[in-house]
Amino acid sequence: MDRVLAIDVAKHVGKTVHTQGWLHKKRLLGGLTFIVLRDRSGLVQIVLHEENEVKKLHNLQNGTVLSVRGEVVKEERAPGGSEIHHAKIEVTVPVTETPPIEIDKPISHDSENLDTLFDNRPLTLRNLREQAIFKVQAKVMEAFRAYLKQNEFTEMNSPKLLAEPTEGGAEVFKLDYFGKTATLAQSAQFYKQIMVGVFERVYEMNPTYRAEPSATTRHMTEYITIDVEMGFTDFEELLNFTGGALLNTVGAVQKDCVEELKAWDESGVVLPKEAEKIPRITIDEIHEAFHKAGKGDFTKEDDLAPAEERWVCEWAKDKHGSEAVFVTGWSAKSKTFKFYHQANEKNPEIADRADLLFRGVEIATISMREHRLEQLVKQLKAMGGDPDHPGYVPLLSAYRYGMPPHGGFGWGLERTVERLLNLNNVKEATLFPRDINRLTP
Amino acid sequence: MDRVLAIDVAKHVGKTVHTQGWLHKKRLLGGLTFIVLRDRSGLVQIVLHEENEVKKLHNLQNGTVLSVRGEVVKEERAPGGSEIHHAKIEVTVPVTETPPIEIDKPISHDSENLDTLFDNRPLTLRNLREQAIFKVQAKVMEAFRAYLKQNEFTEMNSPKLLAEPTEGGAEVFKLDYFGKTATLAQSAQFYKQIMVGVFERVYEMNPTYRAEPSATTRHMTEYITIDVEMGFTDFEELLNFTGGALLNTVGAVQKDCVEELKAWDESGVVLPKEAEKIPRITIDEIHEAFHKAGKGDFTKEDDLAPAEERWVCEWAKDKHGSEAVFVTGWSAKSKTFKFYHQANEKNPEIADRADLLFRGVEIATISMREHRLEQLVKQLKAMGGDPDHPGYVPLLSAYRYGMPPHGGFGWGLERTVERLLNLNNVKEATLFPRDINRLTP
Repeated sequence: MDRVLAIDVAKHVGKTVHTQGWLHKKRLLGGLTFIVLRDRSGLVQIVLHEENEVKKLHNLQNGTVLSVRGEVVKEERAPGGSEIHHAKIEVTVPVTETPPIEIDKPISHDSENLDTLFDNRPLTLRNLREQAIFKVQAKVMEAFRAYLKQNEFTEMNSPKLLAEPTEGGAEVFKLDYFGKTATLAQSAQFYKQIMVGVFERVYEMNPTYRAEPSATTRHMTEYITIDVEMGFTDFEELLNFTGGALLNTVGAVQKDCVEELKAWDESGVVLPKEAEKIPRITIDEIHEAFHKAGKGDFTKEDDLAPAEERWVCEWAKDKHGSEAVFVTGWSAKSKTFKFYHQANEKNPEIADRADLLFRGVEIATISMREHRLEQLVKQLKAMGGDPDHPGYVPLLSAYRYGMPPHGGFGWGLERTVERLLNLNNVKEATLFPRDINRLTP
Repeated sequence: MDRVLAIDVAKHVGKTVHTQGWLHKKRLLGGLTFIVLRDRSGLVQIVLHEENEVKKLHNLQNGTVLSVRGEVVKEERAPGGSEIHHAKIEVTVPVTETPPIEIDKPISHDSENLDTLFDNRPLTLRNLREQAIFKVQAKVMEAFRAYLKQNEFTEMNSPKLLAEPTEGGAEVFKLDYFGKTATLAQSAQFYKQIMVGVFERVYEMNPTYRAEPSATTRHMTEYITIDVEMGFTDFEELLNFTGGALLNTVGAVQKDCVEELKAWDESGVVLPKEAEKIPRITIDEIHEAFHKAGKGDFTKEDDLAPAEERWVCEWAKDKHGSEAVFVTGWSAKSKTFKFYHQANEKNPEIADRADLLFRGVEIATISMREHRLEQLVKQLKAMGGDPDHPGYVPLLSAYRYGMPPHGGFGWGLERTVERLLNLNNVKEATLFPRDINRLTP
C-alpha cells in the first residue's frame, strides 16, 4: 500500500491508509490511546482501539519511527479534520531513551534558553515551530532566485578560499594551505564585480566568514549572503530593483508560509505595493530627527546607531505604511565609504549607497560601484590600499578591460528570516549557528 | 530610449534602437567599419558609416563599453539575421590597453594553456565559449532544484566551520578559531542526515573542502557538492530517484542550452528515457570483464580503476544505450565502506551503495545509511571511531531520538558540467578553481 502523507489523510475518509512517521505525542483519553504521528507534511491523529496495538508502544518514547495502517474517519476536533481509527502499528525504529526536551510544545527562545535550544539542535529542530523558521528560510531563497531569474541574472559560484586578505584584515579567518596561508572569504564582492564583465547580471547565495570577536544578536562568524550585482544600471534603478526583491520575497512568504507565520504570531508585513514607494531618508535627516525627539545625539556619527535603525523603521511604518526604508546620504568621505563605492556625480561628498532597513535592522547594503579604473585606483590608494596587492589584481584587471556602470547589494539571509518572524537573534534563524563561543553541533 | 538587448535587435527591423555592451570585435571591410557588440544576451553587428563615429574608436581596444544608437536592417549574413546601420556611438568606458588574450576567438583548453586560461579569468571568461560552460552550470543547478522541489525536498544550509575532524583527518583544512582549532567541512553528510529527522527530504548545494595534496584533472580543494538525503526510502527507490535526477538535469540542459552545447561540439547525451533503465553492474562484474578483455587485472581491488570507469561507460553506451551506469556490489568489509553506510539485509557482505558513473567519471555516490543506533555505533567502533568524539555526538543524538530508514547521495556539480561538455579537467568547469598550486585569482 502506498504511503499517504499526514496532510493528505483527510482525502481518504472511509478508506484504509498507510502512514509513516515519528511518534510525536501519546495520551490516554476516555480509555482510548491517542497518538499523533509527524511526517514531513505535518501531523495526523491516530486512535488505538486494541490492547495489542497499545502494548507495542510500551516503554517507547516520542521519536519512535512508526508505520501505521488504519481507517480514516472524519473528526472535526482532530488536526486536519480527520483521524485514523483501528490502527495497526509497526515499530520501524524504537526509541527507548526519554528525550531531554519535549518537542511537541513550543521551545523557549528566551536568551537564557538559547544554548539549550542550539546544543540540542538534532532534537529541537523537530519541533514544528522551529521547523517553520527554516521553511521560511527555504522560501526566501526560492523567492529570491525566482525574482533574479525573471530578471535574467545568472547564478555563479565563487571560491571561499582566498590567497591574502585585502580589506578588514583583522576579522579574517586564516588557515594553513599546504604550507602557505589562505583566508576565508568575507564577501564575494570582487568576484561578483568581475562576473558583471561576463554576464552583466549575476548572483550567488554564499557562505560568508567573519572572525567577529564578540557574540551579538546580529552577528555570526558564518552566515549566508545573497550577493547580487548588475551592470548597465544606475542608483535609481538599483534601489527600485532591490525594493522589488523585498516585495517579491515577502509576498511569496506571506502567500506560501501561512502556517509558518502563524506559528510565530506574525500577522503580516506592512509594505507599500510598489518598490518605488518604499520611503527613503538620509542618514543626516535621521540623526537630526532622532536628536530633536530627545532620543540621543548621533549627529556627529557617520553610521546609524541601532536605536536609530529601530526608530526610523517605526517612523516609516507610521508615516509611509512601510516596515522597510532606504537610508541614503552616506558620506563619501568617511570610513563607511569603501574604495569600490561610487560617489554621487553631482554631489561627490555623498556616496551612491543605501542601506535597506527592515523592521529595525539593516538587511542589505546597496551601492553603485566606481566603474572607472583610474578613479578606482585613486580611491584605493587614498585608503592606503596597494593596487599591486595580489588580492586586488584580478578585480583591477576586469576594470582594465572594460567595466560598465554597475552596482549591487549584499543581503543577509538569516537577518531577513529573523525579522520576518520577529525573532530576537539572528542565530535563531540559523540551523547550526556559529559564533566566537559556538562551533557545535 | 529603452535599451534593446542584442538578441532582440532583429525584432526591430526598420526602427532605431539603443544597445549597450562591450566592443567585442572591430574590422574594416569594403571601406566600412564593422563592430560587434557583446551584451549579456549575445552579439550584434553594427556598421559605422560615418568617419566621425569611426574616429571615436580610434586607439580604443576590445572591451570598451559602448552605448550605440542606430537603425536595424535585415542582413542574413550577420549573426541573428540583422545588424545596426548608421550607428551613433557613445564611449561609456574607454579601454586603452590591448588585452593580452583575444577573447573573440576560442581559447585553447590544452593542458599547457590552462594556467593562462585561469590566470586571466576576468578576461577569458568573457569569451562566449567560456561563458557557455557556466551557463550550463547554472542550468544544472536550476534543473536540480526544480527536480528536488517537485519531490518535496527542503533546502537547508549547514555550517562549513566545524569543531574537530572525524573521518579523513589527513585531508582536512584547519584554521585558527579564536585560539581554538576549527576545520572546514569535507561534506555535509552528518548535517543532512540530522535534517532527515526534521524534514525527511533535504538538500544543499554547498562548497566542500578537501586538502587534496595533488593536482589532478578530477580533484580540487574547493568544489560544489549537491547533497541530497531522503527518509523513508529504500535502495531501489533511491537509485531510481538518483537516475531521475540525471535524466531531468540532462533534459533541461539539452532543451535550454542548445547554443552552449553547440559551442563545445556536444551533439547530445545518450540516455534511456526512464531512470529504471539506466544499467546496473557490480564492481566484481566490471573487474572480471575488464580482466577478460585483457585490459588489466583489478580483480583484487575494492575500488574501480579510472580505466575501468571509462570502459564500463563505453560498455553501457554500446549495450544499453546509456552513457550513465550504476556500479553496485561494493564490499561492506573493505575501506570503501564508511561507518554510516548500510549493509544489504540479505547479503551483509555487500553495501547498499552505488556509484553513478557518467561518461567515464564517477559523478555521484549513493548509499543507504545504517539507521539503527546500535548497529551504527558498532560499525563506528569497528572502524576505530569513538562515539563520544564531539564530531559524532550530534549525529548520534539524532539517531537516539529516532531515525527512519534513509539514504542519499553526494553529487559533484563541476564534474557533471565537465562531462556534459566533454572537457578534460574539472577545473575547466569552475569559475575560479582551487588546487594545491592555485589560490588565485
